[in-house]
This record gives sequence, structure tokens and C-alpha cells, in this order.
Amino acid sequence: MSSSTAITDRIALLQSQIKELKVQKQDATPLIDEMKSLKLQVAEQKKADAAAGLAAPSAGGEGGFQLKVPKGTKDHDPAATLMRKKIFNTLEGIFVKYGGATIDTPVFELREILAGKYGEDSKLIYDLQDQGGELCSLRYDLTVPFARYLAMNGVVSMKRFHIGKVYRRDQPVMSKGRMREFYQCDFDIAGTYDSMVPDAEVLSLVVEALTALDVGEFTVKLNHRKILDGIFEHAGVPADKTRAISSAVDKLDKVSWEEVKREMVSEKGLSEVVADKIGQYVGWKGPGREVLAKLEADDGLMSVKSAKAGLEDMKLLFDYLEVYGALDKMSFDMSLARGLDYYTGIIYEAITEASAPPSKSPVPSVPPPTTATSSSKSKSSSTSPPAGSGAVPADGEPDETSVGVGSIAAGGRYDNLVGMFSASAGRKADPVPCVGISFGVERIYSIMEMKRRAREAKEGTAGKKSGKETEVYVLALGGGLVKERMGFTKMLRDNGIKAEFMYKTKPKPPAQWKAADDDQIPFVAILAPAELEKGTVRIKKQVGKEAVEGGAVADERGEEVNVSEVVAYLRRKMAE
Amino acid sequence: MSSSTAITDRIALLQSQIKELKVQKQDATPLIDEMKSLKLQVAEQKKADAAAGLAAPSAGGEGGFQLKVPKGTKDHDPAATLMRKKIFNTLEGIFVKYGGATIDTPVFELREILAGKYGEDSKLIYDLQDQGGELCSLRYDLTVPFARYLAMNGVVSMKRFHIGKVYRRDQPVMSKGRMREFYQCDFDIAGTYDSMVPDAEVLSLVVEALTALDVGEFTVKLNHRKILDGIFEHAGVPADKTRAISSAVDKLDKVSWEEVKREMVSEKGLSEVVADKIGQYVGWKGPGREVLAKLEADDGLMSVKSAKAGLEDMKLLFDYLEVYGALDKMSFDMSLARGLDYYTGIIYEAITEASAPPSKSPVPSVPPPTTATSSSKSKSSSTSPPAGSGAVPADGEPDETSVGVGSIAAGGRYDNLVGMFSASAGRKADPVPCVGISFGVERIYSIMEMKRRAREAKEGTAGKKSGKETEVYVLALGGGLVKERMGFTKMLRDNGIKAEFMYKTKPKPPAQWKAADDDQIPFVAILAPAELEKGTVRIKKQVGKEAVEGGAVADERGEEVNVSEVVAYLRRKMAE
Repeated sequence: MSSSTAITDRIALLQSQIKELKVQKQDATPLIDEMKSLKLQVAEQKKADAAAGLAAPSAGGEGGFQLKVPKGTKDHDPAATLMRKKIFNTLEGIFVKYGGATIDTPVFELREILAGKYGEDSKLIYDLQDQGGELCSLRYDLTVPFARYLAMNGVVSMKRFHIGKVYRRDQPVMSKGRMREFYQCDFDIAGTYDSMVPDAEVLSLVVEALTALDVGEFTVKLNHRKILDGIFEHAGVPADKTRAISSAVDKLDKVSWEEVKREMVSEKGLSEVVADKIGQYVGWKGPGREVLAKLEADDGLMSVKSAKAGLEDMKLLFDYLEVYGALDKMSFDMSLARGLDYYTGIIYEAITEASAPPSKSPVPSVPPPTTATSSSKSKSSSTSPPAGSGAVPADGEPDETSVGVGSIAAGGRYDNLVGMFSASAGRKADPVPCVGISFGVERIYSIMEMKRRAREAKEGTAGKKSGKETEVYVLALGGGLVKERMGFTKMLRDNGIKAEFMYKTKPKPPAQWKAADDDQIPFVAILAPAELEKGTVRIKKQVGKEAVEGGAVADERGEEVNVSEVVAYLRRKMAE
Repeated sequence: MSSSTAITDRIALLQSQIKELKVQKQDATPLIDEMKSLKLQVAEQKKADAAAGLAAPSAGGEGGFQLKVPKGTKDHDPAATLMRKKIFNTLEGIFVKYGGATIDTPVFELREILAGKYGEDSKLIYDLQDQGGELCSLRYDLTVPFARYLAMNGVVSMKRFHIGKVYRRDQPVMSKGRMREFYQCDFDIAGTYDSMVPDAEVLSLVVEALTALDVGEFTVKLNHRKILDGIFEHAGVPADKTRAISSAVDKLDKVSWEEVKREMVSEKGLSEVVADKIGQYVGWKGPGREVLAKLEADDGLMSVKSAKAGLEDMKLLFDYLEVYGALDKMSFDMSLARGLDYYTGIIYEAITEASAPPSKSPVPSVPPPTTATSSSKSKSSSTSPPAGSGAVPADGEPDETSVGVGSIAAGGRYDNLVGMFSASAGRKADPVPCVGISFGVERIYSIMEMKRRAREAKEGTAGKKSGKETEVYVLALGGGLVKERMGFTKMLRDNGIKAEFMYKTKPKPPAQWKAADDDQIPFVAILAPAELEKGTVRIKKQVGKEAVEGGAVADERGEEVNVSEVVAYLRRKMAE
């Protein structure tokens, strides 16, 4: 950066000169223009440096190595971290409103705890090296650790939320927010309750949360494992192939039916006839009660016990969701299967228009109906949710990190997971049925970020990048006054006011003004020997960079205030 | 737990009976006694179950395994998580007040990033298994990732804080809060500033934070690497042995001088004479300016350049700390060395009386003086801080997880770390001097937890264990009214009120009352068919368990309120 220090100094000088001109109500345009172009230079230089850092040759320097973060991970700068915190706070507020309590579990678990919980995705689990002692793996999600917690502590009912990072050795696609390290925000209800009541609570929470997060139009795709299994049984899928076929169906929102069918037939050894029978159903989706009626009219399917049981659940669920005013956000969707092994009841995924990648690919087409009633194409197009197509990614790769392609939240009911743990630990325990939701923060974040940029572009404003909340910058004009600035800053902080000063004994005024402007600190406290003599300082309201770059500026010189009255004065001004 | 369900049912019944008796102003003592003993039973059963879970035989169950968390880690239950969050919020509030901004870095780094940064403790680093691709390790602290962040992004000045988990494969001692996974809360100032100004800021922050956290009496042990190196040079330690000898001295707060000397002589090959010369100094500690004067009076030592430079720094620092009103919390301590390699200037550790383990061991004794002026024993005893002895642990094991034995915060100045990264990545960059502090949350937590327990024991109150913040429990008397409870609860939540109800269609009144009592939910909304007809519900103020267990109880039956006025009514009542 040393190359650019000259420039930044020049910028600082220009800024103070511009200030001066403004005070004298003179035209500062030429200086402003020069400064702006210089700033642009600096910004580009910074970018270049960072890039250089990422691409630094391994040969460079003694014991040289690449200065980077591990593949699929990234640093979050102050602005990004602050935005994430806002998401967390919004979600947490709602989790608590629904009676949730939070727990904190280790970031790694015994390897055997995670084993056999994630179906085909188990290969994505990060293992810790065996350095002697137990074999551990980084957690893949927050659900399995929660189930382990319940079983281990003999807890039979709990409403818990957990916000934490999870880890998946997937092929990262940063642009799509698919990372190897990413946050999940989970809310789960454990306990033996009456059918669909907790399920309705969770779905109501999802709708409230996504509305509060302002992610734009969204839809919750909804299905039931029992109905899906019923369809497979009805179509003639051998019981031992059910899960395999299920995860094939799960890919329908990423690849075409043709591909899914090929996988079923050639890879999973399903007969063509059976596959086609499945194909008749998987395209069905739309408003809950519409699809419900269609399924109930299908006598063949209704003759399958599990399918009928699943439909009973859904009917009850829709009644409850109506009470919650959440029914119209749902899309009952036969193509939703969810990859994970542990789901036993309803499953769901929330998608949004905004979560569609820039370049859209066509909606996966479902083959033309062989019978009139199963006209999936027409049905799906007539009843498909607005966001449905928006959720299809540019490429066909699986995107697990945002909890399903384009989905920003996903979950379902898992009634046996806790019992599995108790059993395999050789303990007697009541089964602990669970239902829960996991919000994919990375995807939500990128949507909010997109919206923010759009807003700023429209309003021509630049968001505060520093991630600081400092309220007062304490600077000295004439003399260094370092101890005075220290003491004054401490006095402000002791009164709960966020204050800073420059850590130099004799800082130049321009440098101090620049520091205050760069972080857009709303107030500046000006310490000067003469005024301190009188026991006063000057408080100046800043208007951020605009103050320097041509915006309207109030009280250029600031107001003179008795030191003893500064706190009260500032509190008043801040409240304005 | 099924064995105990009968008991819990009985408890629920008793509770409602007790309520009835109270309403009729009759004596409920016998029932109360029975209930209390039953509750005790349940509690013990729970404990036993949990223990059984931890100790479950690997042979138990099919594919059986131990149901536990990895060695050195633990789950934090809702109450513990909530208490931790309080600590984080207190610290964050102060970090922000000092102008800090936060970043978020990956939990694992490229292995080469961490290599050679932690001296003898590098062996404690957790490695991820090589599953193809980059070699990574879990972060050992938050400081090295911060330095990596600055170098990688070419940032030359930043005030950043970071709250996150770090990992050390140490021998865990849970009772002492020494874990393999634990939180650190770091605040660091990076940038080229004037001597000791940022250093004073950090130490002022430490004093403010520990005061706010209410950890009891505390002292900040303070030293300077240059003075320490000066002492070694003066004593005749070969330059190449400096770091090794330094880490031997660092053990002085855990083991006796005799042991440290033995390590220096027999292990690190130092001559007896040199070791004794060091022994003359390491006992010196006390109020900053006292020790300062002693050192300045030592002509031999003053003839060593680095020692003199270090003293100049300290003199300036003490002046600044006086302005901050933080000087009296400091203890200038020659025995403080800090293990880590990267420190280059002042180093410090905060210790508290409360952070002493229950069983105290004697203060490590320093050998009787060989010369009058270096009478370390007498000096140290006369000037040793009150908390000094309190910081000595029961056993002699090193305790890194709480950032030094008994210490609840530690840090120092590291001026070369960022430059090291830039250099080894083959990049030109200004050096970026840094100074920072790391708070050891586990230790702070256990101190606050101890204090909380003591307070509750004194007041005979039991803290809220549920970790919930629910304000209203919505229950039904007569009929299940599940949709009514849903709708009413949604109405409350839509108005920002934290509300819950039982997820059963026809829950028994006792079970509902118990649920509200168990979580000490302050208000209960009672829905009854007759009243709903009239468009009213009853709101009852709960007094927590005490309401059932013999405390004074207000408005037993609650107040009848129009549904349309419930929100306003509750807001008013909650404000009371």
C-alpha cells in the first residue's frame, strides 16, 4: 500500500481544502473532481492488491505460500458481518417469540454420530485427522447434533433454536452462495404431541420469518414422505429401492425428467414401466387443497395405506395453516423429495423469485401425460408457484449449501432420529418425534445484499462500509492534545457514548477530518487550546462524505459547548 | 424417561390440586411436600439417565456406540448459552464503544498459515484429515487469522473485534474450564501509530470490560518483551536461547522457581550462574512506577539497550493509563513472559481472586535474594497484587484454554506478525503493528456462574432454567379449543408478544398449568368456551413456581378481558 500513501495524503489535503472553500462559500468543484478520481484510483489499487494477495505465487518470499483462505470458505468483512447479524437477530427474535430456547453444541462430533444420517451426501463430511484419541468429524448440519443432545440428556420435549456454522466438502460455487463453511439457523420442536400441530407451528414460523426478512415473493414447497412412498409403492418400486428412487426424484428441480428417469432405469435398475408410472405423479403441484383433491380422486393411489395416511395428515395441516394465515404461501409439490434419510413425515423447502441465479435455465419439463388425469405439465404450469421456475439454478449441479437449489429454508419431520441414538447407545427411551426448519443464511444474505445494492443505486447513496457505530470523533486543532483527547474520549465513553480519536500525539488536522469522514461518524468534537482554557469544546454535526463532496452542510464550524454540558448536548442532538 | 412419566403426571395433578386449595385459602402443605419430594426424584432420575447416557457401554444396542460429545468439548444448555450471550453482549458493547468493527473468518485455515506461530504449543493444533485438496487446521486463536486477514487484503489500519470458538488439543480439565473447544473474544488495534497510545486504549478497554462483567477484584499483570529480553541479555543468556528461556519463565505462575531453574539448566542447557541472575529479577512485581524505579536504579540492566527502550515505553504507558484511570489496576510483573512467539512489546494477563480454584496452592516462592537490591521475595510480598496468589491453580498443569492459568484475559503487542504473512506470500507491504486483548469466556463464565449460584443460595431463589423468554402461555379450560389457541397465540405474536400453547388438541388443564409453571411464564391466557362466546378471555399473572409452592399469589383466577383489548392490557401489565 505504501505506493498509494502519497495519494491518500493528497486526498486528505484536498478534503480539508474543500472544507475551507465551503466555509468561505466558494466553489470547490475542481478540487472535488480531482479528489474523486484519486479515490477511484485508491479503490482500484486496493482491489488489485487483494487480488494479488489471493494469486500470490507459491514461490514468492522465503518459505513462501499462498495467502488465502481454504477453498469454499471466505472472510466476512465488517459490513457483511453486520448484515449477517441483522439476519440472525431477525430470526432469533421470531424463534424466541415462538417459545424457542437456544443451545450450543461442539463444532465437531464423534464420527459415528454422523454416520449413516445423510444418505448419498455422507461423502461430503469433513473428518478431523486421527491425532490419537477419538475420531471426529465437523458437523454437517445442526439437526443431528440436536437429536444427539436430546438422546444423550434424556430430554423428551424441547423447542430449541441454534444458529451456527456447518461444514460440507462440496464443490463450492461462491457466486451461488454454495460454500464449504456456512451458517444455518435452525428451529426444531421435539416432543410427543398431536398430529400436525407442531408442524403447523413450524410452517407458520417459516412464513413469518421470510416475510420479516424481506426476501421478496416466496413459496413453500410442501410434500409428505408417506405420500411419496405411497406413490412409489403404487408404481411398483421394490421396497429396498425406495430411498434410492426418492433421491433421484429429489433432483427434479435441477435436471429434466428424462435425466431422472434415466438414472432410475439404468443406474438404479428400475423398470421403464414403473419409472413412467412415477412420472405421472411427480409433476403434480399447486395450491394445497387442489392437489389434495386430485390425489384423493386417484383410487389406485388411495388404496395404498401410507399414501392415505399421508393425505390425512396434509388435510389436517392445511386446516391449521389456514388458521395461521399461512396456507396461501404453500405449494403442495409431488416432485419434492429431500435427500436426507431421516425424514419420516412432511417435508418442505422455501424458494423465492430473488433466489434465482442471474442466468435462468428452463423449468425441468415433465413428459406429456399418458393419461388425462395425470397431465402433470399442464397442471404444473397452470398451478406452479411464481417462484417455482425462479428456483432453478444455472447449472445442473446439486446445491446443498443453501439447503436445496434456490431454496432459502428447508426442513421436515423426523420422528426416529432421536430414538436411533438412544437405541444404538443401548438405552431405553421413549421415541422423541421432531419437526424443524433450517434457514440458509448465505442465500438469504445474497438476496438482501442484492436488494441493498439496488436500493443504493436508485437513491445514489453509498451504504456505510466501515461496520462501525462510532458516534463522536474527538480531534484536536493546534497542538497534539493527546492526553486531552484521551481524557475527553474516556469521559464520553463513561457516559455510554461511542467515541474515538486518532492514536497519534500530534496528528495533522486533515488526517483527523478524513478519519471522521471515511467512517461517516455523525459528530466531531473539536478540541483547541484556547477553548479548552475556557472549558469549552466545539461539537460539529457531520453529514458523512457528502459534507465534503458537495452536499448541503449545516453548522460548518460547529457549536461551542461547555465540557460539562457536552454529554447532555450530544444526547439531545443524537435524538434529533 | 417412561418410568418417570407416572411421577410427572402425579406432580401435575398435585400442582393443580394445590392451586385449588390455595384458591379456597386452605392448607396445601402436605401436598406441597409430596410434590417437592417427587420433583427431587425426577431430577435425580434425569441426572442418572444423563450419566448413563455418557457411560453407555459401547457394546450396548445394535451398532452400539457411546452417546457423548468429543473429549474436551461440551454442550451448553439454554441457561448456560443465555449467560454466555450476556457476556458476549457486554464485551461487544464495549468493543463498539471503542470504535471496533467485527469480522468473521473461517474456523479452519490453511495449515501453513498457523505453522510456526505458537512456539511449543504448536503441537496442540487440530488438523483436518487430508481428504484430497488443501491441508487445513482448526484455528488455534483469533489473532493469527486476523493478521492473515490484514495481510491478505492489504489493510494497514483497523480496529476489529471477533467473538468465536478456537481449538486446542490440550489435556482438558473441565472443572478448571480448560476445554478443547472454547470461545475467545478478541479486540485488536492494527496500524502505525504513536508509541503506547493504542496500547493504553486496549488496557483501558480491559479494565472497563472486566469491571462491567463484575468478575470481582482483578489485576492486570503487565510486562514488556524488550525488558525481559534485556534481563536475559544482561544475565548472559545466549541470543538463540532467549525464547526457550522466556517460555520457561512463563511457567513461574504455575510451578516453583526451583523447577523453572531446573528446566533452564538441565533441559535448556543454561549455566547455573546465568539462571540465578535471572532469578534475581523474575520476582519483581508491584505498582507500575515502583517497579519502574527499581529497574531504573539497576545500572547494569540500564546499560542494555532493549531494556532501556522497554522502560521508556512503560513510563509513557503509565502516564497514559493514569489519564484513563486504569493505572491502579496494573501490576508490573517481571515473571510474566507469555508463551507465544509473536509478541514484540508489552504483554499482559488479567487475573482475578475469583479465578482461583477452590483448593489454593501456595504462591510459587522465589529464592531468597543473593543481593540486597534484588530481594524479590520481600518485594514481591510487599507489592504483590491481592489477586496474585489467587491466580495459582490447584495443580501444576499448564492451562492454556483460559489464556494462561487463572487469567481471564491476556494479550500484548505483535508488530511483525502481519508483515511475516505479507513477506512469505511474496508481497511488498508496510509493516502493520498490532496490539490486542483476548478474553477467555469459559473462565469468566464459571466465575459469573459461581456468583449467580451464591446469590441464589443466599436469596433462596432459583434462577430460570428454561432459557425461554415466553411472556404468555395460552391454555384452554374445557374443550381442546386447539384452533382457538392457535389463532389467539398468532394474534399475540403478530403484536410482538412472545406466546406459546400446548401442541395437543385436547390437553388436560393440569398439564397446561404445569407447562406454564415449569417455564415460569409470567402470564397465562385462559380460553374457555363460555367466555369466548362473549368475546373475552381471562389473563392471569403467574408468580412462577412460587405460585404453587407456597408464595403469595395475586389474582388467582385472573382478570376477564375483551379479546380486542388483550394486547393493550398485557402491554400495560408487563410494563408494571
